[in-house]
Amino acid sequence: MSRIKSVSFIGSGNVATHLAKALANSGINVKSIYSRNIVHAKLLGDLVGAKSTDKISEIAVDSDLFIFSINDSVIGDLAKKLKEKVGYDAFVAHTSGMVASEIFKEYFNDFGVFYPLQTFKKSRNIDINEVPFLIAGNSNTVENNLFELASMISDNVHFIDDAKRKVLHVAAVFANNFTNFMYSISDDIVQKENVDFQLLKPLIKETAMKIVDGQNPKEVQTGPAVRNDISTINAHLSYLENNATAKQLYQILTKSIVEANK
Amino acid sequence: MSRIKSVSFIGSGNVATHLAKALANSGINVKSIYSRNIVHAKLLGDLVGAKSTDKISEIAVDSDLFIFSINDSVIGDLAKKLKEKVGYDAFVAHTSGMVASEIFKEYFNDFGVFYPLQTFKKSRNIDINEVPFLIAGNSNTVENNLFELASMISDNVHFIDDAKRKVLHVAAVFANNFTNFMYSISDDIVQKENVDFQLLKPLIKETAMKIVDGQNPKEVQTGPAVRNDISTINAHLSYLENNATAKQLYQILTKSIVEANK
Repeated sequence: MSRIKSVSFIGSGNVATHLAKALANSGINVKSIYSRNIVHAKLLGDLVGAKSTDKISEIAVDSDLFIFSINDSVIGDLAKKLKEKVGYDAFVAHTSGMVASEIFKEYFNDFGVFYPLQTFKKSRNIDINEVPFLIAGNSNTVENNLFELASMISDNVHFIDDAKRKVLHVAAVFANNFTNFMYSISDDIVQKENVDFQLLKPLIKETAMKIVDGQNPKEVQTGPAVRNDISTINAHLSYLENNATAKQLYQILTKSIVEANK
Repeated sequence: MSRIKSVSFIGSGNVATHLAKALANSGINVKSIYSRNIVHAKLLGDLVGAKSTDKISEIAVDSDLFIFSINDSVIGDLAKKLKEKVGYDAFVAHTSGMVASEIFKEYFNDFGVFYPLQTFKKSRNIDINEVPFLIAGNSNTVENNLFELASMISDNVHFIDDAKRKVLHVAAVFANNFTNFMYSISDDIVQKENVDFQLLKPLIKETAMKIVDGQNPKEVQTGPAVRNDISTINAHLSYLENNATAKQLYQILTKSIVEANK
């Protein structure tokens, strides 16, 4: 069991919302939600029975842990302000993939990272139990406490240092952001011709589930590029003549796949 | 009910394997499997109780339908050879996304397309019932017969003309081949640092399922590119300094996402 019985959130966005709900559901006392936007703070505060505020000075001082779930660029700033309120001995963590845990070093005694490697939207339910939580901290005690807290809501908790978390964050841009952009281009292509994007969904699902179920992406690469099927590639490129973005990406990705399979 | 009670396959690859199995399971008599590779022909033939052969002359002449499930580039050639054996009055279809149904015009009276829009691997089970089958033909009778045949194995059957099927085929390259390549790069990035690719799988699944469940890819685009978060982008690019392919793709995809969201 974690020694952490209560938390407060700095931030009320997608990540804060999913974490606060999951922790509250697991019996953690979510004491306060801070957001510079009081409407957002209230929405989440009401959901988890926490006090909402848009003033750092009103954050519940007696929280066992303060979780920073905000834009990377403002973590340092808000850490400084929180320290003025709660003092050096507070226990803090952030949920960022990129920011080193050391960002808290000059302000707090106990600090770490509580990073859920998943894409969250407030409006979409997620099985938090499957979400990988990547934990780091400035002492074994900090790490163990964060690990135990994460284990209350997920079966997929790992100690990962700052450097490896960064690697995963870069990889996640490909696995999530760029993949979603592929879907987006696909959608564009069919919409231009009034063809139903729905028809591509079983393919999208299977493409992902094949990997999730254990196939190696390199080994299951299919398509004209990996076959070096020039006549299909040319037919596709000539079809994309009027879609500059899609055509350019088609060319570059095809070239990269050909090279990767040499 | 389809008037088609028996089929023969020209081809024994991934698509032929899944179709032959599904049709056989639905009570269709799979009479013969032709492949230039007799070992492949036998593997599938034995699986569905069909005669296997590597000679066009041995294909079961009395099949109600001949399904060409082979490389695009050899469909015309084999159609010509099959016609010499079975005559102009045979009923044929191919399973290609790109090839026009007219490829059969000079050889056969009844011809069409029986295209399953999915990625198939012999070794991986698939819920054929959800696979979109895209049907086209040179007459209403042909189309209706192919539609009814597809409906025996799938609940997701559509009439789609050659032009629109081609659009879907191009879109599928993005939704499947290029998406898989994103997974592959992601895998490369983490493997180089001995980080477990397994950690990215919940993200891969959620990224796809969000779209499958009805979100619009453009509306759910996240990441540093769509936020125009230059400091994260630069941190990622500097991390990718020693991975030329990933770095170049990161730059181009980021630029395209920024432009698409202007």
